[in-house]
Amino acid sequence: MPSVPLVEVTRGSSRECLHRGAVAVVDREGRLRYATGDPDLELFLRSSAKPLQAIPLVESGGADALGLTEEELAVTCGSHAAEPVHLSAVRSILSKAGLDERALQCGAHAPGDAEAAAALVRSGQAPTAIHNNCSGKHAGMLAACRTRGWPVETYRASDHPLQREIAAIVCAFSGAARETMALGTDGCGVPTFHLTVCEVARAFARLADPSGLPSRRAEAVRRLGRAMVAYPVLTSGTGRLNTVLLEALGDRLFCKTGAEGVYGVALVGRGWGIGVKIEDGNSRGMGAVILETLRQLDLVTASELDALAGYHRPTVRNHEGRTVGAMRAVFTLEQVSSPEGAYSRGVAPHTPSA
Amino acid sequence: MPSVPLVEVTRGSSRECLHRGAVAVVDREGRLRYATGDPDLELFLRSSAKPLQAIPLVESGGADALGLTEEELAVTCGSHAAEPVHLSAVRSILSKAGLDERALQCGAHAPGDAEAAAALVRSGQAPTAIHNNCSGKHAGMLAACRTRGWPVETYRASDHPLQREIAAIVCAFSGAARETMALGTDGCGVPTFHLTVCEVARAFARLADPSGLPSRRAEAVRRLGRAMVAYPVLTSGTGRLNTVLLEALGDRLFCKTGAEGVYGVALVGRGWGIGVKIEDGNSRGMGAVILETLRQLDLVTASELDALAGYHRPTVRNHEGRTVGAMRAVFTLEQVSSPEGAYSRGVAPHTPSA
Repeated sequence: MPSVPLVEVTRGSSRECLHRGAVAVVDREGRLRYATGDPDLELFLRSSAKPLQAIPLVESGGADALGLTEEELAVTCGSHAAEPVHLSAVRSILSKAGLDERALQCGAHAPGDAEAAAALVRSGQAPTAIHNNCSGKHAGMLAACRTRGWPVETYRASDHPLQREIAAIVCAFSGAARETMALGTDGCGVPTFHLTVCEVARAFARLADPSGLPSRRAEAVRRLGRAMVAYPVLTSGTGRLNTVLLEALGDRLFCKTGAEGVYGVALVGRGWGIGVKIEDGNSRGMGAVILETLRQLDLVTASELDALAGYHRPTVRNHEGRTVGAMRAVFTLEQVSSPEGAYSRGVAPHTPSA
Repeated sequence: MPSVPLVEVTRGSSRECLHRGAVAVVDREGRLRYATGDPDLELFLRSSAKPLQAIPLVESGGADALGLTEEELAVTCGSHAAEPVHLSAVRSILSKAGLDERALQCGAHAPGDAEAAAALVRSGQAPTAIHNNCSGKHAGMLAACRTRGWPVETYRASDHPLQREIAAIVCAFSGAARETMALGTDGCGVPTFHLTVCEVARAFARLADPSGLPSRRAEAVRRLGRAMVAYPVLTSGTGRLNTVLLEALGDRLFCKTGAEGVYGVALVGRGWGIGVKIEDGNSRGMGAVILETLRQLDLVTASELDALAGYHRPTVRNHEGRTVGAMRAVFTLEQVSSPEGAYSRGVAPHTPSA
């Protein structure tokens, strides 16, 4: 099954665009349970990897050794908008690790937050690495290197011990094989991981229920999930999809957006995971995809959907702000009749909780 | 035939995204000659309509009555980046029409040109309607209303005589039927037109060879095409795709980008037209689509393609500016074996030149 229509974009009463892709829903044993489109649709994990990339810092005791706060852990998992709250959390992590902004090797781009971007221009300053949406992740990587005694200058290299450990974690959680998983270079310069939609869902299922993992790793996963739910804005920015989902539904999930149309959701209570790839990389309809998936899985109430209508059924507005069109999800998840088939590629199920 | 893969986006050596859509190539008799994907793929014409929307101003003698220059005609057909050269051309049109910026009803957005946008923020000013990429089109519409004695306050309404005349022109050029063609509201507030990829190609074929049209209309089309070729930057912005194509290939074509992945090319010498729709609305691979189409039609030389390699085979860069991926066209145009089929929907061919 190829990629299928996920979101239709209309103008007036006629179709203007279509976003195709795939959604996979995996249970706590790693089995594909629901899907639409090709669960093997390929992608790079991009920033949806951040909760996995933060594990070495916490699991090793590094976060405790440095006295990192929950806000600071949340921003290590975040793709932030460079609002003041984000910059101060990132600076604090670096300071606790005995470093400063000069250690960040993520490259610079303008703040995602419009007001922060305008303030920077007004001040006559150019964006620096701290404004990069990945600076929290990079600060966390640097902090992990400091507490593990690894070199900080080369922390982005794929053969650096931190990046090797992260790649092993990505494989352990997703079921991908390290020998065959392709790497790419992420927008921020660190390795990123070529996976399938089903593998993203499997990784987030293990994030949702880490009970079968070694206890220090399981506790690290739970702590990172709690931090993201406790500080939604730190994972993204005010009013953004990832923030809003955590604010509204943090009692049952945590989630992480990735560039180029990737999304992962850890359904904590159920121990399931959702993976999404919009084939064309455009995330404008991602709220519709995630909320419609949750609706079809009966994991969100009608009143919650009403409150999130601006994300579930986004409008298209013209430059005056007038509504001229709409986006809506157009897919139906199909139940996978023999979920054992998920193991056909030789992926071992992770040990279910006792 | 549904939409087909047009552009693949890779990171490292693996696929990250795919942009699907359709391309249609129509000859001077309005017949579909080459295509990939569904030539009936639907779209809104958006800013690719601008050369058509400018016709009433020129055809009626209004442009001459007001003494509009070739630069000013080019910006009425343009989607500009709000560089100083654009703003001064738009202001000049309005002034010649006895109006000023307050007459523009296109809504405001920040300048497309990064330097112009930063300069505006530094000056402490908010964007206004003049910065809207469509302000040249709107100034031209207002100028047409002034010279035709039509009301200027209501120029955006679909039942305004100007908009009715434009809709009739869109139908006459594209072959769409006025009774069935759906309208939407464009980002700038004027009507936009729901067409197919083949109809876009047909409209641009008639722009390429207007010889079968009434002489005043044919001369208006030629004059607008000449203006776009003479002033490429006025149609878009420095270094942008539409500008670059006109600069490099203006001896054989003129062209116009539209929002949400639309493009039209008028192959002037041959009298043919090209229509493109990227189904998902993302235009980042449009250079690859247009240049690959021209390559397959043998309308661009190898050395020209080399010089335009940054548009034909764009790179994906990370925030440091390092190349981490690439885009490349992945389609093959197919010759239509019985081009008479293009008339199956009852569209009359336009009269070929003598």
